[in-house]
This record gives sequence, C-alpha cells and structure tokens, in this order.
Amino acid sequence: MLIIGNEILSGRTRDANGWLTAKILFNHGCKLTEITVVRDIQSAIVESLNRLRNDYDAVITSGGIGPTHDDITMGSVAEAFGVSLKEHRHIVQAMTDHYGKDGMNEGRRRMSRVPEGARLIRCEKSIAPGVRIGNVYVLAGVPDIFASQLAVILDDFGGQGFERREIEVELPESSFALKLEEIQKQFPGDEIGSYPRRCGNRPCGKICLSSQDTEQLTAAEQTVRLMLEQLALPFTHKS
Amino acid sequence: MLIIGNEILSGRTRDANGWLTAKILFNHGCKLTEITVVRDIQSAIVESLNRLRNDYDAVITSGGIGPTHDDITMGSVAEAFGVSLKEHRHIVQAMTDHYGKDGMNEGRRRMSRVPEGARLIRCEKSIAPGVRIGNVYVLAGVPDIFASQLAVILDDFGGQGFERREIEVELPESSFALKLEEIQKQFPGDEIGSYPRRCGNRPCGKICLSSQDTEQLTAAEQTVRLMLEQLALPFTHKS
Repeated sequence: MLIIGNEILSGRTRDANGWLTAKILFNHGCKLTEITVVRDIQSAIVESLNRLRNDYDAVITSGGIGPTHDDITMGSVAEAFGVSLKEHRHIVQAMTDHYGKDGMNEGRRRMSRVPEGARLIRCEKSIAPGVRIGNVYVLAGVPDIFASQLAVILDDFGGQGFERREIEVELPESSFALKLEEIQKQFPGDEIGSYPRRCGNRPCGKICLSSQDTEQLTAAEQTVRLMLEQLALPFTHKS
Repeated sequence: MLIIGNEILSGRTRDANGWLTAKILFNHGCKLTEITVVRDIQSAIVESLNRLRNDYDAVITSGGIGPTHDDITMGSVAEAFGVSLKEHRHIVQAMTDHYGKDGMNEGRRRMSRVPEGARLIRCEKSIAPGVRIGNVYVLAGVPDIFASQLAVILDDFGGQGFERREIEVELPESSFALKLEEIQKQFPGDEIGSYPRRCGNRPCGKICLSSQDTEQLTAAEQTVRLMLEQLALPFTHKS
C-alpha cells in the first residue's frame, strides 16, 4: 500500500486508510506486506510506486486525487507507467451531469484526467472515480470515499480469510520466548507474535496466533496455552 | 521512519508510534519524509533499512527489539550494516542488577545483543535500551517505551519548529483550486494543503498552512482568507 499525503507525515492527520486496509485484507485472506507513506512530491510517489508495483502482486494507493495543487497522484501514476494523462469522457460526462456545464471548472477538469489505459473504479460516495492501471489501484484519501472504493475492488483480493486468536499472558516475555519459538517452528503455517504492554509493575501482554487453517490454528493455540500453564505452575505454587 | 511489525500490517494494532513521531518532529522543525511499515522478515527489514538510511539524513525504527522469536530487528540492523551482533556488557550488567543472576535467561541474553559499534539509548521506561548506529536509531515498539526513547534522542533532530494554521472552508475544492495554487507559488516557503471532508451534502474541509517562518505564514494565511472571502461573495449575495 502507498499512502500519499503531507498531512500524515506532518502529524496533522492520523492514518485511517492504512489501518482499515490492513484489517479488511486480513479478513479476506490477503497478506498486506508493506505500507509506505510519502509526501505530495511527484518524484517520491513515482519512485515508491515503481518499487512497490515491481516487488508485490498489487499496490493500493490512497490520497492525492482531488482538484487542488497538492493532488498529484494521477500525474505521478501516469509518469510511473510512462503513459500520458488524459481527460476521460465518462468522468467529464458524469461531472457535467452532476454539476452542469457551468460547474465544469478547471478543478473538475483536473479530476477528469486519468492515466491513459486506466480503468475506472466507481463508487457511490464520489463522482470522481478511482482508477486501476496494471496492478495498481488508485483510490481516494477521504476515508469514507476510500472505504467505498476499497469495497468495490475487494473481489480482486479474495481468498480464504485469516483467523486470529489472542491469549492473555501475565508472564515476562523472556520466560516463554524460547518455548514460543519452538511452537512457531512446529506450526510454520501459523503466524505467532508476542505483544507485551504495561500493566503497572507486573508483566503482561498477549500472544497472538493467526492462520487460514482453523484446525492448525486451534492446535497451535492449545499448545501455547499448555506451555503457559506449565510455566505458570511454579508461580501459582508460590502464591 | 521504519516501523517493524506484523501486528500493524495484519490490522491487529493501529499504528501509534508513526503518528507520535510525525507530530513531535513537526513541532521540532524536522521534516518527516517517509514512513515504511514492514513485516517481521529479516530480508524486508534489511532492504528497507538500507534504502532509507541511504536516502535520508536519519532513520528511526520502531519495534522488534524484545526477547521473542518475532523480535529480529537488532539482528537485521547488524546485517544491514555488515557488523556482528554482540552481547553488550552494560546491558547484561543492568539486567543482572535488576533481575538477579538467576533471572538472566536466554530471552534476556537475547535482549543484551546489539550491533557491534552501536551506542545505547537508555530511557527510564525500560531496562533494555534502544541503540544508535550510524544514522539509524533503533527504538522499541511498545508505545510508552518508544515515546520515552524518542524524547531522549530528540536533541539530534532539533531546529526551529513548524507552525500550523487551519482555515475552515465551506466551498467545493474545485472552486478555489487554481487560486490556491497561485498562492502556493507566491509563498514557496510555506506548505499549503487542502483537506476536504464530508458534512452531509455540503462541501466542507480545511486549508492548512505550515511554515517555520511566522511572518510568511501569517501573510499566506491572510492571502488565503482574502481569496476565500472574495470567492464566497456571490454565494453570500444569493442567500
């Protein structure tokens, strides 16, 4: 995923679209491997996009497709693909229908220009569509429009959803680290992570397991629970 | 910034450290240019880190420095720099002082190993320190430890803080896009962005200006306000 926007990198806005995409792709069984956030700078967008579309099966971009001077995503995508930016007559038509001929100002003309060869991604939340070109999906930055466009393209990312199990732990990570590593090796198809947090002075956290295979996930979960019970025994006896 | 952790990319955890860093660096006048989030995969960490440390003045990493099998940041940083991972006697000492000799299990030994040549970044929230090597700062993933370590290194990123002004707008972006672009050209030292959102059926949003120069910022803000007032006139007369 490529998120485009100064507002994220200046701390003005907390990212919402990356987080939404991560959750939704997880539930659809598609592994999100990288998120990169760059500024509204054409060279940065072009370079990042070319790297990502070359490294991964697909790239979803978010942001920079409005009518203002800082909306430079469509031009950057065209540049990355080495194609020109062209006014799309279906977009012009939809905008003219909505705003009238007098409403077709230069800002809206700008939003009608997409990379040559791109297919439109329409959604009900916006007249200006996103586009798909090659393995790149160019979506909006405004969260509700982004969500609506993401829902439209989701079939392309279909699969067996991942399932997650979480186990509360009240032991220091270092006490189970080696045993947990053995269990990870025993269940290579599951993804096992340990996430400590702060509970006053006591150690606490969660062990998370995820997999597309419910049986394997259950087996791994039971193995972790058994390991933790055995580790906790001496502590229980002391108290 | 390089954020390391499956939990962000699987949607389990919403990023907090990237957001915090963006806000704090803005206030300290340091321009955050890119955030990349990768999985707990050594090759991904090494590749991203080598790209970022080569492209930018400094890189802050977050996550993966605990004792469990998914904590592979220190080893990956060592690999990226082509140095070995070595037990640091100051960390061993601090851990032994805190947990006792019996408490020095393999998990804590693991947390004592840092890239050769790295300098320690200690903070009050954690016994295991972060490290600095070259232009890379390796910090924790747990938000309160990360925040505490970030505060310690912040002097390295010092400067004249950026200031931000926001103007509420109730016009469609396309109606002021061209004029705003002219103002951006008139004030190249300011960063001007337009961020629409949804207010029912009415267009609304904010124009944001930021700069390190208060005078220039005020001048640009006044120019934008004047432009908006003139644009809004026909709307006001109609109502």
